[in-house]
Amino acid sequence: MMLPWWRAPARVPDDEAAEAARRHQAQLTKPPGSLGRLEAAALHLAALQGVARPCLRQPWITVFAADHGVAEEGVSAFPQAVTRQMLANFVQGGAAIAVLAREVGACLEVVDMGTLGSGCLPGVIDARVGPGTANLVRAAAMCADQREAALLAGRDAVRRALAGGADLFIGGEMGIGNTTPAAALACALLRRPGRELAGPGTGLDSVGVAHKAALIDRALALHGLVSPTRETPVLPELALTCVGGFEIAALAGAYIACAQAGLPALVDGFIAGSAALAACRMNPGTRDWLLFSHASAEPGHVLLLAALRAQPLLDLELRLGEGSGAAVALPLLRLACALHNGMATFAQAGVDDGH
Amino acid sequence: MMLPWWRAPARVPDDEAAEAARRHQAQLTKPPGSLGRLEAAALHLAALQGVARPCLRQPWITVFAADHGVAEEGVSAFPQAVTRQMLANFVQGGAAIAVLAREVGACLEVVDMGTLGSGCLPGVIDARVGPGTANLVRAAAMCADQREAALLAGRDAVRRALAGGADLFIGGEMGIGNTTPAAALACALLRRPGRELAGPGTGLDSVGVAHKAALIDRALALHGLVSPTRETPVLPELALTCVGGFEIAALAGAYIACAQAGLPALVDGFIAGSAALAACRMNPGTRDWLLFSHASAEPGHVLLLAALRAQPLLDLELRLGEGSGAAVALPLLRLACALHNGMATFAQAGVDDGH
Repeated sequence: MMLPWWRAPARVPDDEAAEAARRHQAQLTKPPGSLGRLEAAALHLAALQGVARPCLRQPWITVFAADHGVAEEGVSAFPQAVTRQMLANFVQGGAAIAVLAREVGACLEVVDMGTLGSGCLPGVIDARVGPGTANLVRAAAMCADQREAALLAGRDAVRRALAGGADLFIGGEMGIGNTTPAAALACALLRRPGRELAGPGTGLDSVGVAHKAALIDRALALHGLVSPTRETPVLPELALTCVGGFEIAALAGAYIACAQAGLPALVDGFIAGSAALAACRMNPGTRDWLLFSHASAEPGHVLLLAALRAQPLLDLELRLGEGSGAAVALPLLRLACALHNGMATFAQAGVDDGH
Repeated sequence: MMLPWWRAPARVPDDEAAEAARRHQAQLTKPPGSLGRLEAAALHLAALQGVARPCLRQPWITVFAADHGVAEEGVSAFPQAVTRQMLANFVQGGAAIAVLAREVGACLEVVDMGTLGSGCLPGVIDARVGPGTANLVRAAAMCADQREAALLAGRDAVRRALAGGADLFIGGEMGIGNTTPAAALACALLRRPGRELAGPGTGLDSVGVAHKAALIDRALALHGLVSPTRETPVLPELALTCVGGFEIAALAGAYIACAQAGLPALVDGFIAGSAALAACRMNPGTRDWLLFSHASAEPGHVLLLAALRAQPLLDLELRLGEGSGAAVALPLLRLACALHNGMATFAQAGVDDGH
């Protein structure tokens, strides 16, 4: 039996390039370490790009959108029709991620992974694998074929990004109700109860959050994803099928494809984080290729970040999704590269290095 | 007797503009509050600029440099000659702040407030008020005339910025040994012992930090800036004179001048923070016009930020100075404005607003 594509090995970061970058960085006209995490970011990018002087010229943003059957349980402050309405807003340039893409000079594409409604909107890439997922508290959110198709749609986006000359991939998501599948997926993978990952999302009150947590616990029980006696970890593919979402699976596929192709990916917030965790469970080498942009206001994000051993660059209480937090963090990575590449060395500037 | 110029009232932020901005923000196609602190930043800038749609087109950076007599006590990992050497590096474009100014499209000017050595370097503005300060553990760092001249040099920089069309002011500093006067000034204003504000600066070990703290305590005692029985606050002008630095006084003058002219100022890290605290004590209305860019790796910065009731945008373990942390935070403020001004409203985009 052939291994599925997502099990093929990830590329290995280039330690020699990182070491060359480190030697260069040590000569720059500043006290060692004084640029803090910007220094570490430059070295990480050097290892990923395999060069001593990394740069981010062409970022690429793909927003995956889908609907969720669990929305019928009242887990969102917004009606489901908003998913589709926002697709149009992405394409027409009025959504946050569209504004940010223009500002940071990123290519932006929008992929319909399965929204409710017929036909695909103009300017949106059609990768629909169904009219939204099934309601995960009543049935598996998707079937195995849909999961494969969604993972492949993520890989396809990365292939388009590479063909477009991208040197950084940002995956965004849109889908009314999608903090519920994201939290359920994280609960399954981390073996935690719903209350530890459920949060207000777009604006639930405490009663709404408790309802969401209870729904997640019901779903985990229904699908056999939690059992106090079971010691073996939950299969990430199974968790994705039972409680995931089409856009979440697409993100997971995209992160794995980035790692296999050696393209750094800048991860957004809570929902992207749950997809990143699934991706790393499906293919552990994926982790090396992920950079983390921000700590979300969604409380469960802390557990996801800890599980991923991730320290994000920003903490601005963002909770919008769409890839917006990653786009906001991008200028910091670019400045880290600019400093690394553009500063004079002690010798060049004739400055005493303190030794 | 005339009030000194720095006591003249600061401008009052425009609450009506902020309210108009708030009404606009509430209509944008996103869940309310989901852009977190970027939303608050846009509203703050709206109040400061007196418009419902703020923007930051022309940032201005002035780096003030000076030497410090206390360097002879061995409080820095670098020799004093580096202050002057770095002035040349600023002008020639190899220093971190020079790289950042290019990247963010800011005007950069460099002001010599009193470095050791004769003559002023080409390309550097000459505002020298002395060949470095006196050693603050033996004498007042400067005399009252020098303090006035340094404060005025800060105001002059803001006037040049305004004449140049600036809509944001960033003050940077350079001066080997200057975390010691900055910490001493903060200790005097906050009535704290040296150990609470002294930190490693450019790279002291724990013995060096303890030595620095002891020097600060000696200076505070020498100048009568700490007395357990005295309840009245220390005069900020006196503290600046006794334990300040020329570049620190210039920064304080610049912040006050910004507030009087209604120009927002983006404050850098520890040393800029001590100058900001002095400025706010000299003229409390100054506080409204200050935005805070980052939490420094210098441990005493926490106390300064708390005293200023400031929550900075970034925490990247930066500790370089030069205004670098403020320049790194600038793109976040610009993106906050771009989102505020560029996003579609629910009505424009035909998106249900969830009500």
